[in-house]
Amino acid sequence: MRPTLIVGSIAFDTLHLSGKCHSKVLGGAATYASLAAAHFAPVQLVGVVGHDFPDSAIKLLKDRGVDLAGLEVARGETFHWEGRYSEDLSSRETLRTDLNVFADFKPKIPQSFRAAPYVMLGNIDPVLQHEVLDQIDKPAFVLADTMNLWIDIRHSELQKLCARIDMLVLNDEEARQLTDEKNLVLAAKALQALGPKHVCIKKGEHGALLFQGDEVFALPALPLSKVVDPTGAGDTFAGALIGYLARGGDLSSTSLRRALVHGSVLASFCVEGVGTERLAAASPSEIHGRVEGFRQLTSF
Amino acid sequence: MRPTLIVGSIAFDTLHLSGKCHSKVLGGAATYASLAAAHFAPVQLVGVVGHDFPDSAIKLLKDRGVDLAGLEVARGETFHWEGRYSEDLSSRETLRTDLNVFADFKPKIPQSFRAAPYVMLGNIDPVLQHEVLDQIDKPAFVLADTMNLWIDIRHSELQKLCARIDMLVLNDEEARQLTDEKNLVLAAKALQALGPKHVCIKKGEHGALLFQGDEVFALPALPLSKVVDPTGAGDTFAGALIGYLARGGDLSSTSLRRALVHGSVLASFCVEGVGTERLAAASPSEIHGRVEGFRQLTSF
Repeated sequence: MRPTLIVGSIAFDTLHLSGKCHSKVLGGAATYASLAAAHFAPVQLVGVVGHDFPDSAIKLLKDRGVDLAGLEVARGETFHWEGRYSEDLSSRETLRTDLNVFADFKPKIPQSFRAAPYVMLGNIDPVLQHEVLDQIDKPAFVLADTMNLWIDIRHSELQKLCARIDMLVLNDEEARQLTDEKNLVLAAKALQALGPKHVCIKKGEHGALLFQGDEVFALPALPLSKVVDPTGAGDTFAGALIGYLARGGDLSSTSLRRALVHGSVLASFCVEGVGTERLAAASPSEIHGRVEGFRQLTSF
Repeated sequence: MRPTLIVGSIAFDTLHLSGKCHSKVLGGAATYASLAAAHFAPVQLVGVVGHDFPDSAIKLLKDRGVDLAGLEVARGETFHWEGRYSEDLSSRETLRTDLNVFADFKPKIPQSFRAAPYVMLGNIDPVLQHEVLDQIDKPAFVLADTMNLWIDIRHSELQKLCARIDMLVLNDEEARQLTDEKNLVLAAKALQALGPKHVCIKKGEHGALLFQGDEVFALPALPLSKVVDPTGAGDTFAGALIGYLARGGDLSSTSLRRALVHGSVLASFCVEGVGTERLAAASPSEIHGRVEGFRQLTSF
């Protein structure tokens, strides 16, 4: 079994959704990504939590096959984010961000994790993403996620990171922002020129694009009649994507395309429940069913 | 050969694109749709132009296999629209609309067109769309296009029209506006409940969705690195779609899906040139090549 190393934030999210408040739900990019990847391969999680992190969350992660040897329990409280979604869930406002122990997060990769062949650098400071790569052996595949904040304040570190990774995952606005190029095809080419062989541009409800060499794959999203909570959908997508690659150990173009399909399938489960509940509960047959659903959705 | 009857606007467009002004280019929804449909089947065009409509445009349409027995030449000038696109072509502002002879357009369907098995009701007043249907025999397939203006001021006429057509084509915002439903899957179901068996929701650069019974088809758009002029892309899409159906005479679910692919292919040519120039010039082998391109783009 090829394990996947996932580094990133672990948090509690307080979510205001359709007039209801869900207080301190388990969240964080690395949590979503780990629970998604764990459907396909063993996960080695590196992150930091506070003393308030409950045994129930530890148990949930362990039960799913997530190795917590890299989970640092620091003095203080766990990262907490609070946000309110608009009625139609198309936008959200941050009400509160308490970085807490995450403010001083310095990823320490346990010896037992350093040979992980598949690595996901979750959306954290690119300086820390570099530090993770400095601590590990040469992996078979490194995926990195990022966000507008780092494009703004860590532009050159992020560009340098691109030369060290195999796949950059970001959304359409971030791709435009990072390259200063409005056309997504040209933006993707500019990103590939920085280093990564694979560039995946997420477009939310409009699906995703995968650029590999001169080849493009376009995947629509599953049209869903019920979306409950979009939190973590992007992290889930990336986590399932790398977990799928780890399971198969196949880095062919077709395998990468199928990895996107599996990412999108897990993201579709993610948004159907509050927090990680639906994502964690998806069964292998449910996942298989939606992969087949994608074939029916897209075939002509 | 099964002809396609197309009713709608014929115009001159003055287009401001990337700082250049293209004056009085041949345009109008029915023009784009006819030139697109004519790649696949004979077209019978019904519309009105003024005395200023040039022989060169008449010749272009006739040479493409468009029957102009339904082209009314009225006293006055041809409909003229002038607009300026934003730098990235994502939005446009109308600078001038001279309806001219189009203001009094009353579609008169020639006897020789009344048995047309495939009919496209271009984006005109739903009252006129009803009048077209009143004048013709029962066709095998009727497609109707519409726009936000008619949803605002002809809401009930448009709803009643839905009961008389086989396919409604509209964009995502129009689908939400017409049904007062934010979720596109639920909006499509609400539209199907009004009558049309097939509902096609266009999403511009994000592709299109086709709802048929309980089945959904999602088609991404071809990622293009060069877009010159988006004018008429939606009309081209719908025109090629119905032209493709007319050519095959097959109304199966798979044939409908392939009709969307052909619509999208012709739209991709349309936006690569100013006005109708690239659309009209696409060769059968170029069209075939892009259909194959769609297979490579979407297969996994």
